[in-house]
Formats: sequence, structure tokens, C-alpha cells
Amino acid sequence: MDIGGTKISCVVGTRDGQILKRDVMPTEVEKAPEDTMKKAIEKIRELLKSSRVELSDVEGMGVGAPGPLDPISGTILDTPNMPGWNGVCFKEILGKEFDLPIIVDNDGNAAALGEKKFGAGKEVNDLFYFTVSTGIGGGLIIDGKIYHGASFDAAEVGHMTILPDGPRCRCGKLGCLEAFSSGTSIARRVKEKVRGNPDSLILKLAGDKIEAITAEVVAEAASKGDGLAREVWEEAARFLGIGVANVLNLINPQMVIIGGGVAKAGELLFKPVRESAAREAFGRTFESCKIVPSALGDMVGDFGSISLVL
Amino acid sequence: MDIGGTKISCVVGTRDGQILKRDVMPTEVEKAPEDTMKKAIEKIRELLKSSRVELSDVEGMGVGAPGPLDPISGTILDTPNMPGWNGVCFKEILGKEFDLPIIVDNDGNAAALGEKKFGAGKEVNDLFYFTVSTGIGGGLIIDGKIYHGASFDAAEVGHMTILPDGPRCRCGKLGCLEAFSSGTSIARRVKEKVRGNPDSLILKLAGDKIEAITAEVVAEAASKGDGLAREVWEEAARFLGIGVANVLNLINPQMVIIGGGVAKAGELLFKPVRESAAREAFGRTFESCKIVPSALGDMVGDFGSISLVL
Repeated sequence: MDIGGTKISCVVGTRDGQILKRDVMPTEVEKAPEDTMKKAIEKIRELLKSSRVELSDVEGMGVGAPGPLDPISGTILDTPNMPGWNGVCFKEILGKEFDLPIIVDNDGNAAALGEKKFGAGKEVNDLFYFTVSTGIGGGLIIDGKIYHGASFDAAEVGHMTILPDGPRCRCGKLGCLEAFSSGTSIARRVKEKVRGNPDSLILKLAGDKIEAITAEVVAEAASKGDGLAREVWEEAARFLGIGVANVLNLINPQMVIIGGGVAKAGELLFKPVRESAAREAFGRTFESCKIVPSALGDMVGDFGSISLVL
Repeated sequence: MDIGGTKISCVVGTRDGQILKRDVMPTEVEKAPEDTMKKAIEKIRELLKSSRVELSDVEGMGVGAPGPLDPISGTILDTPNMPGWNGVCFKEILGKEFDLPIIVDNDGNAAALGEKKFGAGKEVNDLFYFTVSTGIGGGLIIDGKIYHGASFDAAEVGHMTILPDGPRCRCGKLGCLEAFSSGTSIARRVKEKVRGNPDSLILKLAGDKIEAITAEVVAEAASKGDGLAREVWEEAARFLGIGVANVLNLINPQMVIIGGGVAKAGELLFKPVRESAAREAFGRTFESCKIVPSALGDMVGDFGSISLVL
């Protein structure tokens, strides 16, 4: 299961990464988590049935969910985008229904492991995964395994301070990477600046509705040469590159993988990110690291959940 | 052996951290490395003799030296403060003289392992060590062992970008942690500002000689309430705290140990560093981490070298 703030993806897959069945349902965060989980359990039973897999043949169940999260007890802690889910214990809820090993981890870690087992990182042992979408998260793989850290909060890369006294992040701190380079921040920064510029291409691409401006719209306008879009996009990419460089300087991984909605912009993002990282990384850490897009794309959460069981 | 830009410390020690004999000699970087290493080899023979240890009873020889350094071949790469030593291969030079396992690593890594085996980090498995002196270096211990990274450059924490477009570091980059918080940078920043202030307490403490201002003098003046000294000192501590917070956000270690000359200022440094790290670290990474001074002080390099053999 890949549990997110808007949808839950359930998948039946094999050890070698074949997806037998997959289905997606809404999370409906406004409702009680118990009701959603009940529906999810039904969904899993359906998928097992339709893929003709007996429960006795299932090795385990992997669950990726937004952090912070305690992977030992399998409990969601205080996740900003899933209010009401604080304290929900997946191991307990799912363990009552399925007599299986249930492995729970935060979605950034699961995605990082998914890329290691099935995606861009198959050939390396040490990698750092960035997800750049609504927010910015990450996962650190050391020696082929998720590195959790003392309080299971390693790889909280979105809240690394990139510009002291910079703009306020939704976490409350100032100058976090997420406040510059997440999809939400890219859109917000453009919305703030576009008001004085009613003829902007960005507005046109957004159907003349400021509230319809997304990072995707900004990327499109930037690729068509719009000045404001380029300015905000390039700043976001530059700061993301500084974040990558700080990872390189501290951890010196073999590979940095960038996924999430914003990474779909491809070279429009990766070129300035690599340039910025090359400028800011120390010595040989840049040359010894491949900075590549996610190979699993929208399926990274599904493969991530599967990889937790392996 | 602990090899530095000004001096080389040679020590005979035991598995349990007893120092049997120790002696220090000048590095004389202006001379040929071969001559210095020849003297060092004589020194080691003397120390073994005077501590009545037979070479056949020696388990191995650990060598800590400034990075970047290739620990596999045991070769110094391009170390800024030891010109002329680029390419010096300790494994080859010492291996010709001593039929022993020779383990070479950069001094930040060796110090981190020394603190893990014999110092402040004995009780933890995952720690990050900062050395704050002339420059800023570090070492990362994961699961009780040195974590080297893809090109042996992990924990290059001094060159993490702390303030984009900030002051130029001696490495050539802008806004590195080292450009704010190393002993050299603290002294330099005060020297730049003290000229317009001939009655400054800092100058008095430095015997009215601008060139005699050191980070130690700045610390003393700051502790006595001097405004300029406090301003520069607190900025250095604040940025060091941001560096610590970035380590917490990425690696979430159980412990951060700070050593080196600047750390001798004790709480004058640690209090603002902890305050800054608390402000900038995400979530529980601060609460789950002890931020403590080096327990080995000036001997960290010696214990570091010993620990490389264990």
C-alpha cells in the first residue's frame, strides 16, 4: 500500500517487480481513518482474489505513508497533510486482518528503496532520493538498506536550511529548501509576482486564473521563455542544486535520484540543478555522483511498498 | 601517526587506549616529504624501543593525515595546507620499513572513530564529528564504522553552503560554513572590523597587534562582553548551528561531537550552537541528538590513529 494525503494505491506484486494488480482509491482525509482503512482492506482482498494469489503465498505487506512515522510500531506520527491520522497504527490495523509480516515506512524511505531495488539505483549501494512535489522529502539508502537515523527522521531534506532568514516554510522555519523548490512554493512565488503582470504567458497558460497556476504551468511558461517563470524556476532549481550539493558534501553518495511531480520537467530542471550542484559541491563529490531522474515515476510508491518486504 | 600541516605526532598505544609513549615533531612542509617521513620512521623506532614493545607484538599502524586522501592506496591527494605532499603514499613509505598492516585515513574520519572508540561517542553507533580549528572538517560514523562515501569525501562539512552568495571561502566557493565559523575566519572577520575601533578590548587582549588576533582572543573578548567580538562570535556559532542542523536533518545521528581549537571555548560556543541547531533542525532530530564537546581534546588525533587499527 502507498498511502497519501489524497489517494491510496494498493498493489499486488512479485519479488522481481511484476505488478499483478493495482487499484487506487481516495483517502478522504476528512473522514475517519478507520473507515478508509476498512475500505482499503476490502480493496486488498479484492486484488488478491482477482490476481488469484492465496494469502498463504504472500510473503509480506509493505506500507508507505507520509512521515514522520515510527517504522518499528508502524504508527503515523504528526503528519501535516493527513490531519486526523496522527497515531494510526498500520501494523495493528492490518495485522488484525492479515496474518503476515507488515513492514511500514515513510514514503520517502520507501521510494528510495524502490528506486534501489527496481529503479534508477539498481547498480549502486549508496544513494539519496529526493521527492520534489507538493513538499520535498527524501530517503537515504546506505549499503542497500534504508538508513533511518536516531529518531527515524533521517533524510528530512526538505527542511534543510538553504537560506538563513529566508522565506517562511509551512513547517514554521525560515529558509527551508521546501520554501523555494517544492511545487507548491514554485506556484506560490509565481502567484505573488504575477499580479502586476496581467499579460503574462503564465496567466494565459493557466486559463487566466491565478489560482490555476501550478509548478507544471510555470515549467511550461519557462520552457517557452517567459521571464518571470524562468526567474522563479531557475531560483528553485538553483536552491535544489545547493540542497543536492549539501547532500554530496555530507554523504558523498554514488547517486542522487530526483522524483516527484516537479522532476517531470526533465532537463528543464536537471540541467540547472546539476550546474548549481557542480558549483557548490566540494571536490570530487560531484564527479563521483550521478544525478538522475526517478526511473519509476508515478509508480515509485508502489515499487517502494513492494521493496519494503524484500 | 597523526600527520598535520605543522606537526606530526607519533604514539605507541594499546587496544584499550593506553598511551605508552608519545612524541611530537615538526612537519617542516617547506622541506621534502621524504626527509620528514624518514625522521618520523626513526621516531617510531625510538618510541617502540623506549616503550619496550617488539615490532612482532604490534598489531598495526594507523595514520591520520589531512584530506582529501585515498584510504585504499593510503595516498594524500591535493591537500591545501600541505603543499608538496600531493601523491605521498604512506602505505608504501611505511610498508617498506614496517611489516605491519598500515591503515591510512583522513584526520577528520580518524578523529571521529577515535571519539567513537575512546571518547565522547563510546555509547553510540552513529555520530558526526566536527573539527573546528584552522579549517572545518568532519567525520561520519555509521554503525560504529567510518562512512567514506563514493569518493572518500563524505563529511566534508566545512564546505557545505550555509549562505548562498556569502563570503568567499579559501576553497574558492562562496558561503561555505568554514568561511564563517573556522578559527581563521573568526579572526579574519574581527581583523576586518577592528580597524575603525582602536580602543577595542580585542586589540588590547592581542597586545595592540592586529595580526595577533586569534579566535581564542575573540572568544576571551566576547566572554568579557566586547560588542564586536560578541557579534562575530555569535554569527560564527549561529552558522555552525545551522551546519549542525543540516547534519541532523540529513543524517539524524545520535550524537554530534565538536572538537578542535575553537571548541575549547566551551559553553561560549556550545550554548549558541545548540540554540541555533534547535531552531533550524526539523522535528525530533534535535531532541534525539546529544551535541557535546570532544572528550579527547588535543589527543583526538592520537586516539584516532590508534582506533584505525582496531
